[in-house]
Amino acid sequence: MSWKPNRSSSQSLYEQIKSWMITKINQGEWVIGEKLPTQRKLAEQLEVNRSTIIQVLEELKAEGILASKQGGYTYVKSKSWNQFIKNQPKLNWSRTINQGLYKSNLDTIQKVNEYEFSPGIIRLGTGEMSPDLMPAKLIKNAIVNIQLDSTNLGYSESQGDLVLRESLSKHLLKRGLHTSPENILIVSGALQALQLISLGLLDAKSYIFYDRPSYLPSIPSVHSLYCAQLKDNQNKGFYYTIPTLNNPTGDILNIEERKEILSSTNMPIIEDDVYHELTFEHAPNALKSFDHDGQVIYIGSVSKVISPGLRIGWVVAPTLVINRLADLKMQLDYGCSTLSQQVISNLLNTAAYDDHVTHLRQQLKERASFMENLLEKLFSPISTWNTPKGGYYIWIKFEKPVITKSLFQNLLKKNILINPGYLYYPKDYYHLRLSFAYCTFEEMEHGLSLLYEEVMKVI
Amino acid sequence: MSWKPNRSSSQSLYEQIKSWMITKINQGEWVIGEKLPTQRKLAEQLEVNRSTIIQVLEELKAEGILASKQGGYTYVKSKSWNQFIKNQPKLNWSRTINQGLYKSNLDTIQKVNEYEFSPGIIRLGTGEMSPDLMPAKLIKNAIVNIQLDSTNLGYSESQGDLVLRESLSKHLLKRGLHTSPENILIVSGALQALQLISLGLLDAKSYIFYDRPSYLPSIPSVHSLYCAQLKDNQNKGFYYTIPTLNNPTGDILNIEERKEILSSTNMPIIEDDVYHELTFEHAPNALKSFDHDGQVIYIGSVSKVISPGLRIGWVVAPTLVINRLADLKMQLDYGCSTLSQQVISNLLNTAAYDDHVTHLRQQLKERASFMENLLEKLFSPISTWNTPKGGYYIWIKFEKPVITKSLFQNLLKKNILINPGYLYYPKDYYHLRLSFAYCTFEEMEHGLSLLYEEVMKVI
Repeated sequence: MSWKPNRSSSQSLYEQIKSWMITKINQGEWVIGEKLPTQRKLAEQLEVNRSTIIQVLEELKAEGILASKQGGYTYVKSKSWNQFIKNQPKLNWSRTINQGLYKSNLDTIQKVNEYEFSPGIIRLGTGEMSPDLMPAKLIKNAIVNIQLDSTNLGYSESQGDLVLRESLSKHLLKRGLHTSPENILIVSGALQALQLISLGLLDAKSYIFYDRPSYLPSIPSVHSLYCAQLKDNQNKGFYYTIPTLNNPTGDILNIEERKEILSSTNMPIIEDDVYHELTFEHAPNALKSFDHDGQVIYIGSVSKVISPGLRIGWVVAPTLVINRLADLKMQLDYGCSTLSQQVISNLLNTAAYDDHVTHLRQQLKERASFMENLLEKLFSPISTWNTPKGGYYIWIKFEKPVITKSLFQNLLKKNILINPGYLYYPKDYYHLRLSFAYCTFEEMEHGLSLLYEEVMKVI
Repeated sequence: MSWKPNRSSSQSLYEQIKSWMITKINQGEWVIGEKLPTQRKLAEQLEVNRSTIIQVLEELKAEGILASKQGGYTYVKSKSWNQFIKNQPKLNWSRTINQGLYKSNLDTIQKVNEYEFSPGIIRLGTGEMSPDLMPAKLIKNAIVNIQLDSTNLGYSESQGDLVLRESLSKHLLKRGLHTSPENILIVSGALQALQLISLGLLDAKSYIFYDRPSYLPSIPSVHSLYCAQLKDNQNKGFYYTIPTLNNPTGDILNIEERKEILSSTNMPIIEDDVYHELTFEHAPNALKSFDHDGQVIYIGSVSKVISPGLRIGWVVAPTLVINRLADLKMQLDYGCSTLSQQVISNLLNTAAYDDHVTHLRQQLKERASFMENLLEKLFSPISTWNTPKGGYYIWIKFEKPVITKSLFQNLLKKNILINPGYLYYPKDYYHLRLSFAYCTFEEMEHGLSLLYEEVMKVI
């Protein structure tokens, strides 16, 4: 028995030994009924631990290939592959569902996703605006004008509906972006854009660098294993940033800071710009508007301004990148809902749209100051925050690390759903992302006073 | 210089040599200004081709670590990692876009996706029905009844709209499926269901087994590396099957064959049932209707019966599996378009829907017999096929392997787009998937006669 497992192989010893045994049996080197060497002997001959041998033998027994006699020895029971297929272990879903490449969402995120739909829940930190703020009438008018002729009911082009891309090309001028429809890809929200980049452009050794804190750690499946802070020791990967109304901090980078980013790295940059239209004062042009080398992949969406239910977002990038991502999108889901696409192209670039955005900003500003007043009353002695410059969020920092998983759980029992800081930077128990975009004023009052009670128990 | 690259490592020689040089420089073994051995000498010492050495040196030069003197020698220019980060290679998208986990679509598929939208193209094998066959009026009525109140504009629940799942639960009874809304997940078409399974339930060592030929090889990103035929030497993975109107063959398994599949394996089974309603005669109940152990993951869609542009499909599976896939769906795109979901729940289970399906079947049957008559006239001496029992396709087999990539290209030049057999089973150059669902009668005549001409040149 000259074969031995190769210790420098990427295959485990256990796997190598198992394939070796199966090959021996299948090639008739070990025939049906044949007694195998003892475990001790096999371990010696193959120069591995006996536990490795035991593991292989047990598995081959479970699969019906080997069997044991009462006397203690192991013999070959079957070499037939049909037999093998039939005798495979009973289907065990609880094992199977955990074996994929994509890990489950963080436990807290799973709870957030689940409880957001519970009746009576108060969503104190949610990333969605109140349904009252969504422009139902604008959307209804756009729906009525949907064309149901020929191609509009079929699959959409791989980059998405050309009419929508033309509307967007015009719409994005407001952010300083000059882009042609050929350089736009329509996606199912900004999240899908990140997944396409992750599945298509990152190899196993690439990192996504991000600011601290960031939206990115809350979606660990976007190459979660490889996330790292900018200026770590690696330089291969992408840099993810939200220059306008950062989620969760609400920061807005000024023009100099935007230019500084571009000049400081040759890395591809992912600019997530979903909050751009929601600044209370004038917003600087998009980072991408200063990019003349095709370095920035720009991501936008209608979710924060019109309706997340439509699932429409977009990517702006060099042709090479757009073609690659469009090809991937075709592999993932053959494109976005043509209805949703038409609704958005019907409402963009209309006066009614602009009116809606102006109104929305005003409403958000009122909500923000209402929430800030409540915070002043309740939390100013034990926490700090910046007055929001737009968007949905207040990023509040407590003087002690009180925003823990158990605080999250305790509030959930009282029907209060929070978005703890640790979702946006691992192990950050000081911060909380509050949203003034979703709750009614009454809910804010009630929710924040319950939050105050719980925090005071532990501070 | 005793170190040599390890040829049995999974890392390429080039990568190993590059890391080795960087380590030497960083650890001060090669200091700034140090002259490196000549390329020839390095190649000899490391026992690799000189071209490998040149590749490494060029890259390290581009990164500012090494430099060349005019005399011809290479020396160490920088060891600083900060320097390294600043001097990283100029962003090179053409390299970056190919490094992701997901490979590009097959070249032929990319061409199909692209040319389907060219004006004047004749789509002889497309997987889409003619827009004339899509029920524009039914959809229009469903659109008018969309509710735009509160939650309908927000993100959808992770399993999809409950009302739609309730409608589906009733609708699926027609296929013999008894399923509760809790066991349904709404997805963006059947393709997304396959991707969710691939990303969530398959590990790197799992295979998807499929019948020969199958739709599966045409979407290589669904664990393409691991696809294999059923009864190959491996038994870990899933078995993918289309028991009703198989794509591309059009076969329908009878009840005994369905039961036989379930009794012959403990593997999880993926039943793709998107053509179920399109059988010309009565269809047997779904495979899943015979499954009492939760072995089958059932996939359906409205794409082949209503409209692919809506991007609505579904998965029926045990709770454990549905929860896992729903969590993944939230990570990929936060759910489907709520508009599309509402349109489908408004039109399912209506008399108008049933009328549409009856009408559609009748239309497809007429188209099928028109196409078959053309085939009889032109192709009967050199090919065989079965009379279609429903669906969209005729799977035609030529007596010689003439359906090659160059035939595909030659026809494309004449504005004829075909779906060659090699998309459905690698290296099958005998078959062609024809579709009678999309083309007008005139296009069928014109397209098939050009196909005939091209085939006769090579047969």
